[in-house]
Amino acid sequence: MNDTTTTTTTSQEFRFELDATCGNARAGRIHTAHGTVETPAFMTVGTYGAVRGMSPDGVRATGAQIILSNTLHLYLRPGLEVIDLHGGLHRMMGWDGPILTDSGGFQLMSLKSMLRIDDEGVDLRSPIDGSRHRLTPALVMEVQRRLGVDIAMVFDHCPAADASDAFKREAMDRSTRWAAQCLDQPRAPGQAVFGIVQGGVDLALRREHLAAIAELAPDGLALGGLAVGEGPQEMDRVVSAIAPEMPAEKPRYLMGVGFPRDLVASVQGGIDLFDCVIPTRHARNGQLFTPEGRINIANSRFRHDDGPVDPECDCLTCQRFTLAYLKHLYQTKEILYSTLATTHNLRFYQRLMRRLRQAIMDNNKARLAALSAQFAG
Amino acid sequence: MNDTTTTTTTSQEFRFELDATCGNARAGRIHTAHGTVETPAFMTVGTYGAVRGMSPDGVRATGAQIILSNTLHLYLRPGLEVIDLHGGLHRMMGWDGPILTDSGGFQLMSLKSMLRIDDEGVDLRSPIDGSRHRLTPALVMEVQRRLGVDIAMVFDHCPAADASDAFKREAMDRSTRWAAQCLDQPRAPGQAVFGIVQGGVDLALRREHLAAIAELAPDGLALGGLAVGEGPQEMDRVVSAIAPEMPAEKPRYLMGVGFPRDLVASVQGGIDLFDCVIPTRHARNGQLFTPEGRINIANSRFRHDDGPVDPECDCLTCQRFTLAYLKHLYQTKEILYSTLATTHNLRFYQRLMRRLRQAIMDNNKARLAALSAQFAG
Repeated sequence: MNDTTTTTTTSQEFRFELDATCGNARAGRIHTAHGTVETPAFMTVGTYGAVRGMSPDGVRATGAQIILSNTLHLYLRPGLEVIDLHGGLHRMMGWDGPILTDSGGFQLMSLKSMLRIDDEGVDLRSPIDGSRHRLTPALVMEVQRRLGVDIAMVFDHCPAADASDAFKREAMDRSTRWAAQCLDQPRAPGQAVFGIVQGGVDLALRREHLAAIAELAPDGLALGGLAVGEGPQEMDRVVSAIAPEMPAEKPRYLMGVGFPRDLVASVQGGIDLFDCVIPTRHARNGQLFTPEGRINIANSRFRHDDGPVDPECDCLTCQRFTLAYLKHLYQTKEILYSTLATTHNLRFYQRLMRRLRQAIMDNNKARLAALSAQFAG
Repeated sequence: MNDTTTTTTTSQEFRFELDATCGNARAGRIHTAHGTVETPAFMTVGTYGAVRGMSPDGVRATGAQIILSNTLHLYLRPGLEVIDLHGGLHRMMGWDGPILTDSGGFQLMSLKSMLRIDDEGVDLRSPIDGSRHRLTPALVMEVQRRLGVDIAMVFDHCPAADASDAFKREAMDRSTRWAAQCLDQPRAPGQAVFGIVQGGVDLALRREHLAAIAELAPDGLALGGLAVGEGPQEMDRVVSAIAPEMPAEKPRYLMGVGFPRDLVASVQGGIDLFDCVIPTRHARNGQLFTPEGRINIANSRFRHDDGPVDPECDCLTCQRFTLAYLKHLYQTKEILYSTLATTHNLRFYQRLMRRLRQAIMDNNKARLAALSAQFAG
């Protein structure tokens, strides 16, 4: 599984190349119609077609090569007419790099807006205006086609962690059927479609679903339904067991993860792609990432600290602004605080991914282990 | 009064040059230790040492040559220790251009935090933490010295518009004495100090106070206590009568003004400098300036408008983003909305000031009149 040869071309524009491996960890490149993503990669989240507090140029300046947005949220607001008006999401949001959209299955659970689910789709009530909608695999793929994103995700049914075994089985089988339907739908030019593997923390279920999804030959495979409360040890156990069994010639994406420790552990398990709101949301809440762990800008010790958040960091915030000033902006609720804090956290994540990639390219297990140790706990 | 010769050098670094006049309107340059401001100029407001929603680079990109911050607010938060830690406001906020600070007299009125005023100063209760402070002319100048701003304002007593004539007279006389004390205090290197002329809408009082303040030989003179509810016609009447009588060899600053129409009218009256929260605050509230007047981004007609806010505008927002997208960002409460809207409004103001300056440099009264007509009403 750990060869380093160039692999499958799965659609006209989309292509994944494996550059190197180090144990189970992989370094590669995902080529899309809007550019190349070096992996392992962290996808910056812009749920509504904007990264909170950041301009597209600001996002690019953090080193981001790909962003993630959300099909369901964009379908509800601004809606397909507005997306069509712009000819898709790239032009609407002014981001000309690769975009992946989550399909909305997970959001149905987290928004609690699902009214009814059956084998053909989901009835939901919009949390914005109460309007009713019916989502089907075909509609979700149509939305992603009209968004024109580089990577679309299949529509799946992500059951709650505390659902019964029978319900989880039903959700898994439904997700497989929906994935097959999604992969049969028309696509935007060059658009890849990734499948989603469910199965919770049960390795037998995960393996069964992985086999079923892999059989459908999606352009990449994702692990869904993790980081939903099972804890890092359980997540590591599932990822380290399942990721190496995912098709080596396709990108492997761990959805909604995570903290720096999760990224380091999961890259070592063989994951290539991540997304998470943690760096952006934590920034706005005063939490800034440093090599020594997170700091809370509200802490009184920063009132008189004229150093940067992280002396090693090359982000705009660390180059130009002090902790004392950031604390002042946070306390006066200045919008600029969110921008500067988010800039730093996103750059921190991108630098971490670069270090992981470099260690893999150098086949340096000791350096990967050192990163594990640094971010443990 | 309308000569065009180079005028007084009033301190080591601060210098005002008059480049041209057109009727009472003036074009000039204010030279400071942190750079030159071409006038007439609009000062972008960053009350707490940051412009809402904008980075220093973003402010600079709108064409801003000078920003305004607030002595009283910065004294209360983050306080002098933090300002000293940075060696002043320029480094703290990452803005290396000229800065003017308002002294806080007006804010004492608007915050309703004044407990007691006497001839030596003001007792106030902090609206942030309830702490009590005593502001005196000497303290206010010390704060501005430690802020290291290029232009400091004298501490004055700005009475409410509905105060009795006797109280207004008392406030005016007190302001004159305080101005004299302020002008006697130590300054930061190259720092200019401007006097403030009160007197409400009573031309006789205004003239009397102007004479008293001019006698103290400040580096520039401001008109305070306007745009506080008297209406544009009354303001125009006062400005057009008083501004031409202000010393021609010094900058003339109309505090807290205003809408585009106010700027055009007041420039024609002979004003050189303005500041106002309108472009920034209105932006955040959905109000965007265009040559045809203000638009409200919440209006449903923008939902399907893929044009820019203003096709003539060269700001980042108009170059890269549509009205439909801005409306989407506004409705989803994305922080990026505030940044993009503020960028546009500030650029709109800067472009207006450039057009006014160019018309004056060209001695083109017809063009000034056309701008008046365009922004009337």
